[in-house]
Amino acid sequence: MPDDILEPFRALLGEGGVLTAPDMLARYTLDHRALMQGETPAVLRPRAVEEVQGLVRLARRHGFGLVPQGGNTGYVGGATPEPGRRQLVVSLERMARIRAIDPLNFTLACDAGAVLADAQAAAAAHDLLLPLSLGSEGSCRLGGNLGTNAGGLQVLRYGMTRDLVLGLEVVLPDASLFTDMRSLRKNNIGIDPKQLFIGAEGTLGIITGVVLKLWPAQSFRATAWLQLAEGAPLPEISALVRRESADLATTFELISASSLGLVAEMRGTPIGLRTGPGGAVLLELQASSARIPLDDVLMGTLERLMEQGWVEDAILAQSEAQRREMWTIRETIPEGEKHAGGSFKHDIAVPVSRLTDFLGQAGRLLAERMPDVRLSFYGHVGDGNIHYNLVVPKGEDRLAFSRAVEAGIAHDLYALAIGLGGSFSAEYGIGRFKRDLLARYTDPARRALMATLKRGIDPDGVMNAGAMLEDGAA
Amino acid sequence: MPDDILEPFRALLGEGGVLTAPDMLARYTLDHRALMQGETPAVLRPRAVEEVQGLVRLARRHGFGLVPQGGNTGYVGGATPEPGRRQLVVSLERMARIRAIDPLNFTLACDAGAVLADAQAAAAAHDLLLPLSLGSEGSCRLGGNLGTNAGGLQVLRYGMTRDLVLGLEVVLPDASLFTDMRSLRKNNIGIDPKQLFIGAEGTLGIITGVVLKLWPAQSFRATAWLQLAEGAPLPEISALVRRESADLATTFELISASSLGLVAEMRGTPIGLRTGPGGAVLLELQASSARIPLDDVLMGTLERLMEQGWVEDAILAQSEAQRREMWTIRETIPEGEKHAGGSFKHDIAVPVSRLTDFLGQAGRLLAERMPDVRLSFYGHVGDGNIHYNLVVPKGEDRLAFSRAVEAGIAHDLYALAIGLGGSFSAEYGIGRFKRDLLARYTDPARRALMATLKRGIDPDGVMNAGAMLEDGAA
Repeated sequence: MPDDILEPFRALLGEGGVLTAPDMLARYTLDHRALMQGETPAVLRPRAVEEVQGLVRLARRHGFGLVPQGGNTGYVGGATPEPGRRQLVVSLERMARIRAIDPLNFTLACDAGAVLADAQAAAAAHDLLLPLSLGSEGSCRLGGNLGTNAGGLQVLRYGMTRDLVLGLEVVLPDASLFTDMRSLRKNNIGIDPKQLFIGAEGTLGIITGVVLKLWPAQSFRATAWLQLAEGAPLPEISALVRRESADLATTFELISASSLGLVAEMRGTPIGLRTGPGGAVLLELQASSARIPLDDVLMGTLERLMEQGWVEDAILAQSEAQRREMWTIRETIPEGEKHAGGSFKHDIAVPVSRLTDFLGQAGRLLAERMPDVRLSFYGHVGDGNIHYNLVVPKGEDRLAFSRAVEAGIAHDLYALAIGLGGSFSAEYGIGRFKRDLLARYTDPARRALMATLKRGIDPDGVMNAGAMLEDGAA
Repeated sequence: MPDDILEPFRALLGEGGVLTAPDMLARYTLDHRALMQGETPAVLRPRAVEEVQGLVRLARRHGFGLVPQGGNTGYVGGATPEPGRRQLVVSLERMARIRAIDPLNFTLACDAGAVLADAQAAAAAHDLLLPLSLGSEGSCRLGGNLGTNAGGLQVLRYGMTRDLVLGLEVVLPDASLFTDMRSLRKNNIGIDPKQLFIGAEGTLGIITGVVLKLWPAQSFRATAWLQLAEGAPLPEISALVRRESADLATTFELISASSLGLVAEMRGTPIGLRTGPGGAVLLELQASSARIPLDDVLMGTLERLMEQGWVEDAILAQSEAQRREMWTIRETIPEGEKHAGGSFKHDIAVPVSRLTDFLGQAGRLLAERMPDVRLSFYGHVGDGNIHYNLVVPKGEDRLAFSRAVEAGIAHDLYALAIGLGGSFSAEYGIGRFKRDLLARYTDPARRALMATLKRGIDPDGVMNAGAMLEDGAA
């Protein structure tokens, strides 16, 4: 490609606005899990909304496609430019400003390029909470969180990213600007177009700004590590916890013995933190006021769980250090899998009431089909989300193992989840890696509607072609 | 119109499925506020999803438009068939089945024709809460709540209708069925088309089914009536209440002295329940567990409000009867306005932080322009939603007064709200009465997107023409 075709982009975006050197491009073209080597002529780094509009105009004029990219921390290749597609990456990393915090309205407005942890910190500086929280929060950016409708660790109480969004600003594929940056909890003025862009993975436009709901800082916490009894019923436990804790639980995370084992192999076993025969649960309650006797509420809840025979033993965090230790285990599981050689990840969701069914049937399927494979399952079971991962056996090639899992069991696990009213993608999204799953497991009427929307808003297919939808779908 | 053109509909919908007698049509053709006399050849009453698909096919074949109608309790004429448009009303009142309740998943699935109160009762029978709650809950139907994204009395804690929806089933304008009735909290599979139909006021399809989130029954409550001091700052009070009550507040309703006066004129002054110089607030906390000391939390919160000098006096409900009395006042305000001769309703929202600004500036505007008019303002100020209503003066014609308000002050009040980052329609929607306001106050890019979506999904304009969008917009 002749380099001068990028000149208009350089003129628009200025110094550092157009990256083309191979060593500079590397961190934008390889996906986070190193499963796909992408390719792009350049990475564009606008500094303002008008520059985003300008680059969309230029891309259209010069026949480039665009791939919006946040922190490049996604699991499904949704932000990786595809070889052969002539796609420019658009990174909003130079648009990372916190625009405004309104403490009396409990809202934060910021550029879509803001790193999630920076937005959290900006809220915390006003004694407020931005509850979106996930492993990659130090590097993921809000535009990516919005594009994927990120879930994470506090969905149980605060919902998905969509539930936090009040306002949105999007540069559309025709370079026009859709601005809906009001910070209102109530604004019923008909069809709500901003909902479309949440979870659309950059296929309908480039999100440039967002207004998010905040909460009072949750300065008071009570945390426990539960050792589950044999056959402890997760749905019943989860329901009891919601009721007894008055929905103050922010975290209800299952940790299987096998997942804890992976962590222990990497960093040793933390003293006393064992799983029971049914696994372990990390349970945390939070409140913004000292008037809520959180320790009592937690103790009372645990007593009820023990009375039922569902919990064998429980450890209450007596210090922030002990709480951190519990959390570190949970947060280290993905790294533990990586350390053991990587994993094939099934990002399953089922109705909470069907968790026991899923785990039972999936376990039998695995024992039958791949009895020697090491399983790591854990997740946000308070929301019905299980990460049901198969660890790459020592010495085996990662990609070859992936193919074997796909051929041997993955589709049956997905079909099992879907048969129980569940999903093959709880929180990771579709991107480029799960496009075939979307085509296979999703209602044709839904796909037809998605295609209609794509065609209506991006008739020329400028935005993130190859992600989510089949070519020719729109 | 020759009557036999309705024969195919009769054949499809059976006995009682097609109403044409004028006395039978009356309750479907006049809007709830008796502001618009609609007109229709017939009301269609399907019993099943397939019948809804069938009637859409027939309507297309015979050149009828369709107006979906729930309980006909809307405030903006969104479900009223327009004279001259040849629109059939589609009422789902014979599709009112609760399909399933999953107590361990905290979800309820039902037909869109279910009356809200019936759905609430079905949840309550399982010791669960469906938190959507509004004045018309005894007659409004869920399809209407979804179409208008209803707000109501508990938005502060649980959000708008949209926030409660997990699944949706919609018959599209081409008679195909979009089914997304999964009951998952996490299901990230790309663009989420169901979001489009929520708040679309029946302009994109006919909602036939829904899956809603439930909560544990909130069996424990603490309720107080607060008399606000002169100049008490609502934004600061609201923020303090959120923080001190650990967001257990489900209700934070402002009642102005004038609104209380209207209630008193109708049914006498309830003993002891007065407003302070700054009005009154009805505050209620709820919890699902007796482990939360709600009375203490409420008392502590009130003490802090009094220390600040914002609350002069407060009455805690000592019995369910006293609590009911407080609630009856709040719920009777619309009736009080009606009793006094009706009102012109401004359904305003502003960011909570701008409430003081809005009330101050609006009050000055009113004193200047219409000094003799009686004001009734009240509302869900915890969400920034104020019903800022002007009471029709004794003996004056209601419609003439409406025209005078529109010419004299309404647009300036809307402009004031919008200038403060607010909205001219917090929860009522657009329908047929606010179409001109949408055109006047909404960003052209938003309207263009709405038109694109309408065109994409309902290219022939079958669904609820005349509502929300201008003719020719799509």
